Amino acid sequence: MILYDHPLSGNCYKVRLLLAHLKRPYERVSVDVLGDRTQRPAEFFEQNPAGKIPLLVLDDGRCLAESNAIMSYLARDTDYLPDDAFVQAQVLQWMFFEQNQHETSIAARRYWVSIAESSEPAAALLPAWSKAGDRALEVMEQHLRTRDFFVGERYSIADIALYAYTHVASEGEFDLEPLPAVRSWLRRVAAQPGHVRIEDGADASSAAT
Amino acid sequence: MILYDHPLSGNCYKVRLLLAHLKRPYERVSVDVLGDRTQRPAEFFEQNPAGKIPLLVLDDGRCLAESNAIMSYLARDTDYLPDDAFVQAQVLQWMFFEQNQHETSIAARRYWVSIAESSEPAAALLPAWSKAGDRALEVMEQHLRTRDFFVGERYSIADIALYAYTHVASEGEFDLEPLPAVRSWLRRVAAQPGHVRIEDGADASSAAT
Repeated sequence: MILYDHPLSGNCYKVRLLLAHLKRPYERVSVDVLGDRTQRPAEFFEQNPAGKIPLLVLDDGRCLAESNAIMSYLARDTDYLPDDAFVQAQVLQWMFFEQNQHETSIAARRYWVSIAESSEPAAALLPAWSKAGDRALEVMEQHLRTRDFFVGERYSIADIALYAYTHVASEGEFDLEPLPAVRSWLRRVAAQPGHVRIEDGADASSAAT
Repeated sequence: MILYDHPLSGNCYKVRLLLAHLKRPYERVSVDVLGDRTQRPAEFFEQNPAGKIPLLVLDDGRCLAESNAIMSYLARDTDYLPDDAFVQAQVLQWMFFEQNQHETSIAARRYWVSIAESSEPAAALLPAWSKAGDRALEVMEQHLRTRDFFVGERYSIADIALYAYTHVASEGEFDLEPLPAVRSWLRRVAAQPGHVRIEDGADASSAAT
């Protein structure tokens, strides 16, 4: 399999973290998503309607985009996605929450504050992202106060999806200090067997291939 | 089953449309999401971490939130979600695209322009939503130029997810005129057996219960 990837992207990190847990080998191709779109490889766009990373190319050439869809496919019939239909729907519930109410504010703010050359082009949006991101983190805190993991009291791709940008939320100027349940959960996720860090990406890939 | 719902919400409409196709009976409870949160029924928040609609309460009392997670659960083993694992992942890919890149701009702009009393509180965000929504619609147009439906050449919950806010995008001041493939697809979706309109909600519910 080939993973079109960027080392700083939390969405790509989700897929790398799951692949590390699953001990699945893959080749990693970095895409310069910060630069000119025309410099990206042509095959990157062929089966990738929105032109975004991560993109997973299967051994038979078929492609999947959207980090949480990729994880749902790879985690099928593994310990990272429970079998029960209702519990699977709960996993999806948290992954849709992540892509709709969490990534859209926390990842966006992190990008403009810590990765882009200047946050000036997004200045009008930063306050709304602060508010929406704080609200998403508070929803997580409430849920985790009585639980170790998001769904069914076990580590799943719902946790991986939410870990990716929560553990780097400070890079978007979000404060996790008032969120003790979230901070405990971050430590539990990082202690899972086979865990890799976002900055370990290159090592994990070369070890796996 | 009970569906906590709002008649104007596209996310709620997705679930009503699928339930109409499936001829599943349900009770509909309107939640005043535009007003004071404290006026919402207490049981609405008990198993609903983000406090949003739609919320589906199953016959055994278990709850599911997030429209696309609810649809994934209800569509399992029906004609609206293909059996194949990879094709299911493609359906999820489009549903995550919808919640991340489409609903966040098109539904948000529609709310502030056509539903809220004034768009003034969101004035700083309207231009970014225009740009992001137009980009999402263009991704749909490119994909539909060579296809009748989003995945596997058949109508699925991926189409329902994307139809909900696309067919009312003009209420957010989005122009579908330059998007002939999207407009043809909207007509194909509306021609599906068992189709109900967003404004038919009350009729569909009373017919189904």
